[in-house]
Amino acid sequence: MRFVSQIFQPVVSIPKGATIKNIEITCKSQKLLMECGLVRPTSAGLFTILPLARRAISKLENIIHTCLEEVGAQRLSLPCLTSARLWEKSGRMDDVGPELIKVEDRHGKKYLLAPTHEEAIADLFADISPLSYKQLPFLLYQIGNKYRDEHRPKHGLLRAREFSMMDAYSAHATHTCASRAYDTVTEAYRKIFSTLHLPVHRVQAPSGDMGGSLSHEWQLPAQVGEDSLAVCPSCSHAALSTDSSTCQQCGRETNEVNSIEVGHTFVLGARYSEPLQANYIAADGATASVHMACYGIGITRLLSASIECLSSEKALRWPLAIAPYSALVIGPKEGSKEWVGHGFDRVQEIARQLEQHGFRDDVIVDDRHALTIGKRLVMADRMGYPNIIVCGRGALESPPRYELHRAGGEAPLLLTVGELLHTLRQDRENRENREIDVEYETRAGE
Amino acid sequence: MRFVSQIFQPVVSIPKGATIKNIEITCKSQKLLMECGLVRPTSAGLFTILPLARRAISKLENIIHTCLEEVGAQRLSLPCLTSARLWEKSGRMDDVGPELIKVEDRHGKKYLLAPTHEEAIADLFADISPLSYKQLPFLLYQIGNKYRDEHRPKHGLLRAREFSMMDAYSAHATHTCASRAYDTVTEAYRKIFSTLHLPVHRVQAPSGDMGGSLSHEWQLPAQVGEDSLAVCPSCSHAALSTDSSTCQQCGRETNEVNSIEVGHTFVLGARYSEPLQANYIAADGATASVHMACYGIGITRLLSASIECLSSEKALRWPLAIAPYSALVIGPKEGSKEWVGHGFDRVQEIARQLEQHGFRDDVIVDDRHALTIGKRLVMADRMGYPNIIVCGRGALESPPRYELHRAGGEAPLLLTVGELLHTLRQDRENRENREIDVEYETRAGE
Repeated sequence: MRFVSQIFQPVVSIPKGATIKNIEITCKSQKLLMECGLVRPTSAGLFTILPLARRAISKLENIIHTCLEEVGAQRLSLPCLTSARLWEKSGRMDDVGPELIKVEDRHGKKYLLAPTHEEAIADLFADISPLSYKQLPFLLYQIGNKYRDEHRPKHGLLRAREFSMMDAYSAHATHTCASRAYDTVTEAYRKIFSTLHLPVHRVQAPSGDMGGSLSHEWQLPAQVGEDSLAVCPSCSHAALSTDSSTCQQCGRETNEVNSIEVGHTFVLGARYSEPLQANYIAADGATASVHMACYGIGITRLLSASIECLSSEKALRWPLAIAPYSALVIGPKEGSKEWVGHGFDRVQEIARQLEQHGFRDDVIVDDRHALTIGKRLVMADRMGYPNIIVCGRGALESPPRYELHRAGGEAPLLLTVGELLHTLRQDRENRENREIDVEYETRAGE
Repeated sequence: MRFVSQIFQPVVSIPKGATIKNIEITCKSQKLLMECGLVRPTSAGLFTILPLARRAISKLENIIHTCLEEVGAQRLSLPCLTSARLWEKSGRMDDVGPELIKVEDRHGKKYLLAPTHEEAIADLFADISPLSYKQLPFLLYQIGNKYRDEHRPKHGLLRAREFSMMDAYSAHATHTCASRAYDTVTEAYRKIFSTLHLPVHRVQAPSGDMGGSLSHEWQLPAQVGEDSLAVCPSCSHAALSTDSSTCQQCGRETNEVNSIEVGHTFVLGARYSEPLQANYIAADGATASVHMACYGIGITRLLSASIECLSSEKALRWPLAIAPYSALVIGPKEGSKEWVGHGFDRVQEIARQLEQHGFRDDVIVDDRHALTIGKRLVMADRMGYPNIIVCGRGALESPPRYELHRAGGEAPLLLTVGELLHTLRQDRENRENREIDVEYETRAGE
């Protein structure tokens, strides 16, 4: 059980139009995360993730980890420092150009801080080449920092220079096998976004710098987004905006929405394995380039994009599965009748009950007794805690009753402990069963 | 449940005296981790952590995380790119010198890839200064990559250029409070190393480049270690070796042992808060520098050091709590009498039973049916799986019996399923209750 008074959460107030370290505040996730003491910039495009946001990220990482391991992915860690030689071999050194952060070691050897690891993983396969077709396929992923020297970092974590990503890579003997893995990872992505209850659209996309034969972007609608989607109100089909405003699927008029790219998936073919000589030996003894696919989700970007999508200008809202704490308990003000009546023990007892009934390591107690319940409720609402339990006047009744305020703004419920635990359990079950209402396009392999 | 045939584990054989990417093989952890397909160098001092080693690291991170959170530490993430300006302010830019990896961004602004974050954390405190004494203390930690451009990286993960660390920082209003936190974190360290059952010695140490008033190194004896300890066989007192071979505590003759520094703790005082202006306002209204302490554990180093300490030249041994999988199940060879008799179903059933009885997500099945049981047993022993369960001839008996081979080399036991689960549970309980036999020095604050 944690206490709000002990959390390292430097709350600040940012006047309208102010700049922080020469950076303009251009969107609500950036403003709310900073004002609520969750994230602080250290310089342009670089951020310290403070403890409550760090908890949200750990929860997000766990969801991604679980969904990927379920489809057989194996986690590894590639070094962030990638030899420049590999990027020269793939020809991307010049394509990506000024966004690459280059590093030279004390012996003059050239590296870069990898924005992505296609070259590094192909080099790993090459290093153990020739693989036998019997060893394939592999599906490998990592979670870690990536680097991109953005000309103008902006929107806080949405466009940073150091950011956290999940990046996955698969290696195959055939294109068919690569397509199958692509579909499997697509399913895992769907599960990730549906666990978060985020209306993420998968849209066909050009392959760009990355190369390869097929790619999809995973887009989350949000006003501040720099991409634009054409979403069909009739059949829910979504696509990157083009000149036409006609749905490619059903022919109806589409709506334009801004959106944020939170993930990307690519069938790469031999784009990297060929120049980097990642080969395998087929059943007939012939040597060929490994077929590859790659998959990314921007973790810090997804965190801020989801806040951008769900929050108001004034109050944070999180996907429930990644809120820093799922439940906050507020006790009476020191010296009040309730304080005298049941004191702080009752508050801690409620928190313990919650810990034991589905909220293990996921309850925080607002122990700032000097503040009124009302003031703490306002702050808790701004922080977006999904369940706020107030241990106030009702707790003096027999049996004692507690207020349950749920993010979403319905009127609070007055419940006994038993009813409270039951209601919260039902909420959880409903959430797990509810399917999110997003239609995805058909699969790559169909 | 995972299957050995699906694991990405590029096993190689390194001839004696061979160099890999111009790097000499100088110690057994380096050789075994590479030969067993757990780690691969990408260039000097840079490593890919392959899936089985990555699992061990995740387990290690979890232990560290749990022990630190128990004493109230809060996780955050500071950027790896630290502004060079901060290191100029602290004066360490020149002290650490050529080991710093320097980076310039597209606008010519100077950064470094942080080897440690005292400056960055002091700058964070300064950024929210003046803190009130009421907000203190804080204990913050992170887990992530650190960088040091070693002149001669060696011994594999023991001396790498990019490595993973847990680094923690505390901020206090008084020296007494800093000492108290130092003692608390010391207890957490003891719990971490005792969970790993590693004989780590805490020894008083000079503060070196780091500065501050008090520091301890946490040293794990191992032949390849570059440090040297004087350990008293009588009272177990340990100290960094000096000219004298007399125990400082009891006056007896000490033994010299080589050892590896796996952690370090420092009381820093105002060493960083003063130049970086991390101030707080005391109860009397006066402004003063925050008192700081810092704490580190090298995660990738601790992994390799523990392997160095526990393994033989021929076979990996892990601290049981971080073995990649705690149990491996081996079934009969395809076509054998046992294969015909109970087939692969029985093997999977045993694995499922283990998953349900204390080994959730922690069982792997060696499904390479083309190999004999004996051959797979040899490989499993080399990998150091703590519990190897063989589903062989005994499984045809009524009731079926299974061989349990435990890392440590005792004769295998032949057990029914019930006996097997009972024995493994007892092992776990014994391990949890067994105190490791290391005497630590008295505390800083005593």
